[in-house]
Amino acid sequence: MPRFLALVPIEEAVRRIFQYWTPKVKFQRVSLENALGRVAAQKVSAPIDIPPFDRAQYDGYAVRARDTFGADEGFPKKLWIIGEARAGAVFRRKVGPRECVRIGTGAPLPPGANAIVMVEHTREVEGGVEILKSVSPGENVIKKGSDVRQGEVLVEKNHVFGPRETGALAAAGVSTVVVYAEPRVGIISTGDELQTPGTRLKEGKVFDVNSYTLFAAVKNLGGYPRLYGHVSDKRDEISKIVERALKENDIVLLSGGTSAGEGDLVPEILNSMGKPGVIVHGITQKPGKPTLIAVLKRKLVIGLPGYPVSALMVFNELVAPLIRTMTGRGKESNKVRARLTTKYLSVRGRREMVPVQLKTTSDGVYARPMAKDSGAIASLAKVDGYFVIPVNKEIVEEGEEVEVELFGF
Amino acid sequence: MPRFLALVPIEEAVRRIFQYWTPKVKFQRVSLENALGRVAAQKVSAPIDIPPFDRAQYDGYAVRARDTFGADEGFPKKLWIIGEARAGAVFRRKVGPRECVRIGTGAPLPPGANAIVMVEHTREVEGGVEILKSVSPGENVIKKGSDVRQGEVLVEKNHVFGPRETGALAAAGVSTVVVYAEPRVGIISTGDELQTPGTRLKEGKVFDVNSYTLFAAVKNLGGYPRLYGHVSDKRDEISKIVERALKENDIVLLSGGTSAGEGDLVPEILNSMGKPGVIVHGITQKPGKPTLIAVLKRKLVIGLPGYPVSALMVFNELVAPLIRTMTGRGKESNKVRARLTTKYLSVRGRREMVPVQLKTTSDGVYARPMAKDSGAIASLAKVDGYFVIPVNKEIVEEGEEVEVELFGF
Repeated sequence: MPRFLALVPIEEAVRRIFQYWTPKVKFQRVSLENALGRVAAQKVSAPIDIPPFDRAQYDGYAVRARDTFGADEGFPKKLWIIGEARAGAVFRRKVGPRECVRIGTGAPLPPGANAIVMVEHTREVEGGVEILKSVSPGENVIKKGSDVRQGEVLVEKNHVFGPRETGALAAAGVSTVVVYAEPRVGIISTGDELQTPGTRLKEGKVFDVNSYTLFAAVKNLGGYPRLYGHVSDKRDEISKIVERALKENDIVLLSGGTSAGEGDLVPEILNSMGKPGVIVHGITQKPGKPTLIAVLKRKLVIGLPGYPVSALMVFNELVAPLIRTMTGRGKESNKVRARLTTKYLSVRGRREMVPVQLKTTSDGVYARPMAKDSGAIASLAKVDGYFVIPVNKEIVEEGEEVEVELFGF
Repeated sequence: MPRFLALVPIEEAVRRIFQYWTPKVKFQRVSLENALGRVAAQKVSAPIDIPPFDRAQYDGYAVRARDTFGADEGFPKKLWIIGEARAGAVFRRKVGPRECVRIGTGAPLPPGANAIVMVEHTREVEGGVEILKSVSPGENVIKKGSDVRQGEVLVEKNHVFGPRETGALAAAGVSTVVVYAEPRVGIISTGDELQTPGTRLKEGKVFDVNSYTLFAAVKNLGGYPRLYGHVSDKRDEISKIVERALKENDIVLLSGGTSAGEGDLVPEILNSMGKPGVIVHGITQKPGKPTLIAVLKRKLVIGLPGYPVSALMVFNELVAPLIRTMTGRGKESNKVRARLTTKYLSVRGRREMVPVQLKTTSDGVYARPMAKDSGAIASLAKVDGYFVIPVNKEIVEEGEEVEVELFGF
């Protein structure tokens, strides 16, 4: 029989999770293109200067700046062309007095030269080129390391890799990076009334919704969800599938099956499977009262309510912060402040999560509480997030500002 | 030799693309969980009512409402319990006068009953149950189809599948959907100066950046990018890799290799590979003047500028709308209005795209033009998007409002 029969506040539930379970943060090395959207597990510094050498900024002529001083349209300076420097090649001959090298954009500056005259300010003539505009030392040259210095941090630890980071790392020659591994989350639906979508619905049955909304929620957070389908309320079936999911995942989510009738079956099974077993059996909040938390074989099992919106809210409160931690994204969730469209009466003595639909008007953001029956698919389609009413608060007034926790989809 | 030597305005370039090439929109069927983030190729309607039958909203007793009329704490009505209805099972016996059925949340309403009395408002007694509160017909019953009616549209065509849509479709028993296939985009970098990241940088060479930023940009838009690495400026190498990329993709992007020195090599190769060959050779805009467009074997080839930010801007103008169309996302891009932090002088007679960094202050959104040298990785990391200065405009004043096209990352 479960040793934790009393309902506990959510803070105590979270405390017990961390008392009995430690999130295992894992890392993996991925190629640059597969790093998109993943989180850096370590800072990445530039192993080289960018650019790696002094480069021509434009097509033109590499010159010794002093040879061009005083040049203009009416009084051009003539220089000898001693060769051509192309991007990707190395021009080794030194540029001497009154000499120059034809150069393409991006080509390394030849030795001896210290500036580029743009092709527009020159005129090729018999045996050389006329410079029509003087340049100062360094002009039109992109200096070695001027963009990024060797050793400079390109991506900080816990930063998400986007296209820009990818570009910067490519420029520095970095082709693989270490990222947080995606925590594996197994999803099981329980309940005799459930059927998997795609099958022919039998009398009295309904299709499993939570598996799919939880799959999406886990994926959105950067986790790696895996569906185990639904199992009926049979002891053997449940323990077999939970056993398998525990082996293959870091966290296992159960949903449904905690309603009054079968209330004790799942906790009993979990307790029989290992130590410490069930550590939370019910939370003093609405919805989410039948929430179940167990630790087995160092893996975490969380039993969520059956109603889709309720399941998503409890998932967001209990599971999302764990996945965020394991993916290096930190514990912070996505919040927005909004004013309530209508007065809302909460239950006395219980924490309440109220699903809302957001509306942005010229006057600010408004939150409309959704029907309390969170079983409706129609309301699932409209819910943007929820706000929390603490235990000791009973009324939220119309126009009062609340902090809405966004589902993020 | 190319038949389109003159620079053309971007509008003419786009016109020629559609004159010579037709984007092929393809569809595929995917499972519900793989539909996340994909676009619906057809509307999806509910094949069944949701819920599929009249359901109990709470645990309690299924009754004939009239049998409870007048009941209260002081004057309870006693009913006989004729059985138990559980979720997932079908209770067939008809509820007669002064009879009731014990019922669990979600269970089908037994025949004859038309309301549920919540368990909180009952008291079990010898041989039956006392009803402590009257209910009206339909009370605490979720009617068949009250959530979603059979035939109701759950997801409209061209709508992106999110977790909510996934949930609604699961509830309706839909397990696969038809989505737009990801257009395949091959990415090739050309230029003797380029090296693939992860190799040891040789003297005079730089690492290929565009392959990676373009990979990310294509992926962000819902395309399927594929990297072909970089090829040096050798005719055989280039034509071989372009040939392969044409076979395997809908669109092929080339970047680099269109600078002054090698300017004619790539168009020559493309013209030799099929008809119509090069249809645009240069666009009257800054940057992007050397942009190249060809159609070969009914596939589109676009040659982008070498500088990363320039390449991204031209990609966004020319390629992004095509990918959006092919993925069913429509042509609309992501724009934001912002005020310029400083006066900006544009070139006369040329359309100009100016990369900017955005800053949101309490006073509104501001756009700061970035250094004109768009080769810098440091500036790549800061650019949020760009605004366009039309051909016949030369000055944008400080504080003037511009429309910033966002890169979306």
